[in-house]
Amino acid sequence: MTQPSLQQLEQHDAFIQRHIGPDDAQTREMLNTLGVSSLDELIEKTVPAAIRKTDELNLSDAVDEAEALAELKALASRNKIYRTFIGMGYHDTITPNVILRNVLENPGWYTAYTPYQPEIAQGRLEGLLNFQQMIMDLTGMEMANASMLDEGTAAAEAMAMCKRQVKRNKSNVFFVDADCHPQTIAVVKTRAEHFGFEVIVGDVEKDIPAELFGALLQYPGSTGRVRDLTDIIAGVHEAGALVTVAADLMSLVALKAPGEMGADVVVGSNQRFGIPMGYGGPHAAFFAFREAYKRSAPGRIIGVSVDSKGKRALRMAMQTREQHIRREKANSNICTSQVLLAVMSAFYAIYHGPEGLKTIAARIQRLTDILAAGLKAKGFELAHDSWFDTLTVNTGDKQGEIYQRALDAEINLRKVAGDALGVSLHETATLQDVSDILDAFCGAAHGLDLSALDSEIAAKGPQGLPAALARESEFLTHPVFNSYHSETEMLRYLKTLESKDIALNHSMIPLGSCTMKLNATAEMIPVTWPEFGKLHPFVPADQAQGYAALFEQLQQMLAACTGYDAVSLQPNAGSQGEYAGLVAIKKYFEAKGETQRDICLIPASAHGTNPASAMMAGMKVVVVACDSKGNVDIDNLKAKVEEHGERIAALMVTYPSTHGVFEEGIREICDLIHAAGGQVYIDGANMNALIGVAAPGQFGGDVSHLNLHKTFCIPHGGGGPGMGPIAVGEHLKPYLAGHPVTEIPGTDTANGTISAAPWGSASILPISWMYIRMMGKQGMKRATEMAILNANYVAKRLSEHYTLLYTGSNGFVAHECLVDLRPLKEASGISEEDIAKRLMDFGFHAPTMSFPVAGTLMIEPTESESKEELDRFIEAMTIIRKEVEQVINGEYSAEDNPLHNAPHTLDDVMADQWQHSYSRDVAGRPASWLKSHKVWPASNRIDNVYGDRNLICSCPPVESYAE
Amino acid sequence: MTQPSLQQLEQHDAFIQRHIGPDDAQTREMLNTLGVSSLDELIEKTVPAAIRKTDELNLSDAVDEAEALAELKALASRNKIYRTFIGMGYHDTITPNVILRNVLENPGWYTAYTPYQPEIAQGRLEGLLNFQQMIMDLTGMEMANASMLDEGTAAAEAMAMCKRQVKRNKSNVFFVDADCHPQTIAVVKTRAEHFGFEVIVGDVEKDIPAELFGALLQYPGSTGRVRDLTDIIAGVHEAGALVTVAADLMSLVALKAPGEMGADVVVGSNQRFGIPMGYGGPHAAFFAFREAYKRSAPGRIIGVSVDSKGKRALRMAMQTREQHIRREKANSNICTSQVLLAVMSAFYAIYHGPEGLKTIAARIQRLTDILAAGLKAKGFELAHDSWFDTLTVNTGDKQGEIYQRALDAEINLRKVAGDALGVSLHETATLQDVSDILDAFCGAAHGLDLSALDSEIAAKGPQGLPAALARESEFLTHPVFNSYHSETEMLRYLKTLESKDIALNHSMIPLGSCTMKLNATAEMIPVTWPEFGKLHPFVPADQAQGYAALFEQLQQMLAACTGYDAVSLQPNAGSQGEYAGLVAIKKYFEAKGETQRDICLIPASAHGTNPASAMMAGMKVVVVACDSKGNVDIDNLKAKVEEHGERIAALMVTYPSTHGVFEEGIREICDLIHAAGGQVYIDGANMNALIGVAAPGQFGGDVSHLNLHKTFCIPHGGGGPGMGPIAVGEHLKPYLAGHPVTEIPGTDTANGTISAAPWGSASILPISWMYIRMMGKQGMKRATEMAILNANYVAKRLSEHYTLLYTGSNGFVAHECLVDLRPLKEASGISEEDIAKRLMDFGFHAPTMSFPVAGTLMIEPTESESKEELDRFIEAMTIIRKEVEQVINGEYSAEDNPLHNAPHTLDDVMADQWQHSYSRDVAGRPASWLKSHKVWPASNRIDNVYGDRNLICSCPPVESYAE
Repeated sequence: MTQPSLQQLEQHDAFIQRHIGPDDAQTREMLNTLGVSSLDELIEKTVPAAIRKTDELNLSDAVDEAEALAELKALASRNKIYRTFIGMGYHDTITPNVILRNVLENPGWYTAYTPYQPEIAQGRLEGLLNFQQMIMDLTGMEMANASMLDEGTAAAEAMAMCKRQVKRNKSNVFFVDADCHPQTIAVVKTRAEHFGFEVIVGDVEKDIPAELFGALLQYPGSTGRVRDLTDIIAGVHEAGALVTVAADLMSLVALKAPGEMGADVVVGSNQRFGIPMGYGGPHAAFFAFREAYKRSAPGRIIGVSVDSKGKRALRMAMQTREQHIRREKANSNICTSQVLLAVMSAFYAIYHGPEGLKTIAARIQRLTDILAAGLKAKGFELAHDSWFDTLTVNTGDKQGEIYQRALDAEINLRKVAGDALGVSLHETATLQDVSDILDAFCGAAHGLDLSALDSEIAAKGPQGLPAALARESEFLTHPVFNSYHSETEMLRYLKTLESKDIALNHSMIPLGSCTMKLNATAEMIPVTWPEFGKLHPFVPADQAQGYAALFEQLQQMLAACTGYDAVSLQPNAGSQGEYAGLVAIKKYFEAKGETQRDICLIPASAHGTNPASAMMAGMKVVVVACDSKGNVDIDNLKAKVEEHGERIAALMVTYPSTHGVFEEGIREICDLIHAAGGQVYIDGANMNALIGVAAPGQFGGDVSHLNLHKTFCIPHGGGGPGMGPIAVGEHLKPYLAGHPVTEIPGTDTANGTISAAPWGSASILPISWMYIRMMGKQGMKRATEMAILNANYVAKRLSEHYTLLYTGSNGFVAHECLVDLRPLKEASGISEEDIAKRLMDFGFHAPTMSFPVAGTLMIEPTESESKEELDRFIEAMTIIRKEVEQVINGEYSAEDNPLHNAPHTLDDVMADQWQHSYSRDVAGRPASWLKSHKVWPASNRIDNVYGDRNLICSCPPVESYAE
Repeated sequence: MTQPSLQQLEQHDAFIQRHIGPDDAQTREMLNTLGVSSLDELIEKTVPAAIRKTDELNLSDAVDEAEALAELKALASRNKIYRTFIGMGYHDTITPNVILRNVLENPGWYTAYTPYQPEIAQGRLEGLLNFQQMIMDLTGMEMANASMLDEGTAAAEAMAMCKRQVKRNKSNVFFVDADCHPQTIAVVKTRAEHFGFEVIVGDVEKDIPAELFGALLQYPGSTGRVRDLTDIIAGVHEAGALVTVAADLMSLVALKAPGEMGADVVVGSNQRFGIPMGYGGPHAAFFAFREAYKRSAPGRIIGVSVDSKGKRALRMAMQTREQHIRREKANSNICTSQVLLAVMSAFYAIYHGPEGLKTIAARIQRLTDILAAGLKAKGFELAHDSWFDTLTVNTGDKQGEIYQRALDAEINLRKVAGDALGVSLHETATLQDVSDILDAFCGAAHGLDLSALDSEIAAKGPQGLPAALARESEFLTHPVFNSYHSETEMLRYLKTLESKDIALNHSMIPLGSCTMKLNATAEMIPVTWPEFGKLHPFVPADQAQGYAALFEQLQQMLAACTGYDAVSLQPNAGSQGEYAGLVAIKKYFEAKGETQRDICLIPASAHGTNPASAMMAGMKVVVVACDSKGNVDIDNLKAKVEEHGERIAALMVTYPSTHGVFEEGIREICDLIHAAGGQVYIDGANMNALIGVAAPGQFGGDVSHLNLHKTFCIPHGGGGPGMGPIAVGEHLKPYLAGHPVTEIPGTDTANGTISAAPWGSASILPISWMYIRMMGKQGMKRATEMAILNANYVAKRLSEHYTLLYTGSNGFVAHECLVDLRPLKEASGISEEDIAKRLMDFGFHAPTMSFPVAGTLMIEPTESESKEELDRFIEAMTIIRKEVEQVINGEYSAEDNPLHNAPHTLDDVMADQWQHSYSRDVAGRPASWLKSHKVWPASNRIDNVYGDRNLICSCPPVESYAE
């Protein structure tokens, strides 16, 4: 018998079967259940022939985990790690190892979903509450949200919020301090342009106009100056406008808080609190504000509430503000935050405590003082006479020479205008660095006794810090910041939090539209390689050749997956991608002189982010009706096209639809829009149902954004980070976002800037690169097919017990299915929420609830779930269905049944008195597998209304813990 | 006010406070509780003045985590990673990333303790049972133990067991196949020498003597030959002797199992099942045997039993065989296994499954076949006409030239004798490697079409494998090896197991004498650096310069900590260290001509390993009496010295004593022995109570072993690995162990070889290096002081409720304290085991039970536990004391009380009917902190006797799971 060839034995495609849940035998069983003979037949019956791809993906063959890691390591090695003192909002920092390993590298944290189901998310919610408390303390503000994407977008969001808050002020002018970081200015200007605001960038001393709705100040200034903002803020207030201060978090440890100077909003980055620079991200930005703005604030806010037993519990507060509810009337299109990074920065503060942070800040300050003294001693002139960590040195025509000498010593400085150099010191800077910098400035050994300088300064006190601006208020006084300073204690605190949460390492999280698939370890490992983590986003291009190659390859891969021609990697969230895509369309029409095109058609079934993004891009939203199956009503679309004709800029359509169906009419829909001169934006949220099977760039799309954290395996991180690159047709390529500091090949800064960093959250892009590389062209297609198979298997099995909504023309769904619970609710009074909470008792995170249709659950198993896991979920749903029946037939009362009382906690099942009409085991372990493993919900059902009415977004005082 | 200096702000000693639990304020509180004013005073009152150290430790100042990691990285970078095909029992392999991150890099696994408390260790026990099943399947044997240290010691243990098993056979001869790995031969010879066995190394075809008690064969041979052993084994059996086969685990996937050829014992290494080579270790060895030998087998055996509710549960079986019970009559001195590595290799098999393993083995075989064909085509002659993965090529006088050409291509081959070269292929070898090897042999491009060779071989079938030896029996048929092949399923399986176990990431594990202190992340990170992991132990010295520097520095550090002059890093467990130390003493006396010295004095209070080691070193054990406080009875010692005089080789004494006391008489004791011409072996088990405070090398010791996994922060790994280097005085330095393959500077192979690898478990030595480097001289001393403070604080607080045993002359204990439960048992019937199990209900792992005194608990909190954690533990013990009181006063009956019924499981507290005289909450959450975090015991109390009577050491059939 002939043996397999060596190539077959080599199994370069081994990862495909690691990523995909069902094996061949299970796949056959599942196909049998569906009554189809092969995956090909299933796809033929599911995906309309009109769009089905006939050619294979233009990707390489798969390589195995070790090969892919070796290949990526070779790329990474092309990045050069210099000592970087560029500042501008990015600083080298030390991620405490206990946090690195047990949070950033731990699937218990990084695979968790956004805490929509708070009863099984109390761990990360506590992490986020700590984050909010930390931000409130350091900024001196009344409230803070649970993080934003980056400092630039946070400032832009602040601008928009200020505008909303000063309704009586009719000015359209927003003033921006010229000493803001240039990338912040660029992002703000881009936003302002599409909102129709006028931005004036100028000197805060003399350029603030009399009429304005808001101002953005940087504290300390980008070039280092530290000034008291009190009077400037008061002046702006007198004009009836609001002030946002972009502040540096570490400096706030030593400086008077902006809140104490009257700021209305304070934003900034948490990066230097232990988050690797990662060539620009992901980090988290903070957003702190006056309590009065709480309904107007963007992003997510974690708040304290109580559960059904009156016990304190946390959850996302005031969700009705968010884009998925308010759509084009939302405060912002932001639908994610940077949970993983936000909690990491809070843990950094917890581990160091206020005293530890003060020492770190004092050390940075001291080194800066020594450098300043040294520079002055050597005859250099400083641009400012105040500083925290940043000096701007007037160099005149010596700028280039000194800059180059520093480079030769593998030191990066900042070029400021044509005649100055900036130096920002940070947590990892040393006296040796200071000495080497002085040498670079002097062009020879500086010859100074730096230790003597240190002693002098120690005797005199801080040199750059105006005495009036020294921080006097306490911060981080809550016990959580003063208890976990030994590694053992910290480790256990992290473990205690992690243990409260359900993540993918426990069980399936079958969230429709959110695609919680495997985040393979091999994909995650490169994220914490220093070659990717230690790069400042503004280093010279020759130091980032590894990243450049990674970007180029990933862009090609994503273009191949989508059928488009070009990709922009700048948007660092899906919402930003939508915005970037619409902005590109707008710029395209501007270039064509068709500036009248200002309408964005959006089907009624669209995700709320679509209309919110259109609004932010300055477009008018016109809703297109949908039919009873959630498909676009083509007659209505035709009517809208007829009506708006030349005003149509774009149609935004999700494909397959948010209802989990491959609409047959998609080509016709695209043609209609194109015929009207409009552009088609295909929302790539469901791209995981298309790759290898159909390509939006080929069936009519002009632009799509991709949710890398969904389709391309970047983990959800408990609610962020994500990445939202956009793929576009050739004609839109000239309109992709640029960057004011680092040139992005082929772009123009006139197109605007979407994110603070040139390539968004660059350091998580290796995840998607690894995924595509290890799956190869066969694997990427197979994943799509298996996602569709898994969804159809679940749909078919559940259809025996539940009513399904919206199957396609052959009776199949796409990659997710909608279970309609309205008939059951009608009959039993049991709501979709009851069922969602009851699933927690089975150890499952609920599917997406009431989206896109109220009263439904949308289930997306993804290709990564095995048949065993699907069967467990189906069993749970089957048991639940029987319980509903028991309510209907009166075996259970409406008030006392396991659904209404769900989720059940340990407190419940261990109660002395058991007064329910079902057993403790039915309550807490209603299926057999729970006897061997169960994550207990930390709370009973949480009362959202109570918490919103009594909003508390800070850590409750300790006394309140004593019950 | 003068500010701190930059140096103070730099906090290079920051790690000290991360490692140590209590902060300054807590330290003061605790000192107050003890009524002493300072740590100095505490030490003065605890450590006898006669031995107290006056000079400071000869160590550097502390450096912080980042500095230490950078320094170690610089060392590591001096190691060169070549492609290594040396074989000899070590092969490059791929650790599946999901196992790497979630087991090897996960404190949930690596900080767990040996599963002495099985109710909270079912996760790793299941992992070990899987390991045993895997070994039984692959070797074709009836039983397997839970792993040994390495193949060499496993073979030596097999020899000793064979001798025990053939009592009627009076021969002292043990035959060893000359084609065994040389390091195995060396270890076996060393053991044999001290047991008094004669070893004959020879050709299995002609040199097996007629009279012998056992034989050791290698399968396949070290030089690659694969032969049927059936007849050879039968021949040895006819002589009334037993046969041990040292087998290669990967080859067994393709080859007929040794058990099917009649082997009595099969040993080998699991390294190539996913364990990094790590320059020699740690790995795990396996030890499989006939069921008839179960009482005689060394090491630990995991077995199936039932708990008090009749539910299946796992635990260590037949512990009465082990050295801590049987002392000098034990089967072996082994008191640990390599749990972490054993379970990793089982997970490797589970993840690949039998089919995956077959493909890996087939690929290795194919590459070897291609290489063989290529070599033959180029005119080279192979030493054997059979092979699995290893070829020996006759090179004649070309050996050096080819070897060097390979080196130039960064390829390591094996030199075999003077005229041949060995090549062993493995999991990571590629066709390119084969091609490059051929080039090296040819001295030019080989010009062969290797793909064509592959096709030919594929058509013909395996070339090196005799058809009769192809494996026909099934293996790994149990569902556990056929269920977790996707990464998601594997991840969840690992999580499910981890969730059952209590490790240091949950709570204190206050094990007296086992020192469960912080295993800091910064210490663990380097372990998985490829620079340490990818090195074969027999590469040329110039490729291991990083390791060489690490060893040298660590030896200096350990010498400084102990006050000795030299250190041997070879022993890879404490037991091996004891043995190595005694062997050095023996060699020393041999050199002095005092061969009559054959007596080892051992106090009655000694750990059982001491007499077992002495027995293995061929010494006669004479027990020295202890007084009522556990101290050596000096009068009795004098009498024994008098009696045995010139026959005394050594005294083995633990200091501070196993009773947790600094004996005042230690100097006198040492002097007595020295006066009699003997050597003093100070067992370093409690070295963590001495460093910086007293040095055994200065107060009378001649040799000590150090438990790096205790005092020097190598984690317990759930029961291994550890490291047991020995430190000796100058006069013993010439007698440290050598190695037959890799030269260890300053040693002589005539001294014997203790472990298979030259520096034992080299790749975990960075842990101890990091620890000492980050603590520095101040920190190392501080750790000792704080360990003593913590122990005394616990002792003092517990003394309000319990009787303590054995405090020192000022009423203080050393680093651990003994709680005497006998009076309570007398009064209440509640045993120490009841209390140990009850502690599980509080989320604590019990302290050491009934050692060194029956009816006691020995508590060692270590310096890493914070005051909060100590207070929690004390609160638990206080509540337990009250419960005992309730039994005494009749509130609880003897049969129904929370102690007798402990531990309580979820099944218990969720029972429909509650029939206990205490509440469910008292049962399962008897203290307030358990409301926020609790690890539930997976079983009720496990019945050891039942399991030993019905010994099952394999995975139970699935049907038996259906209850």
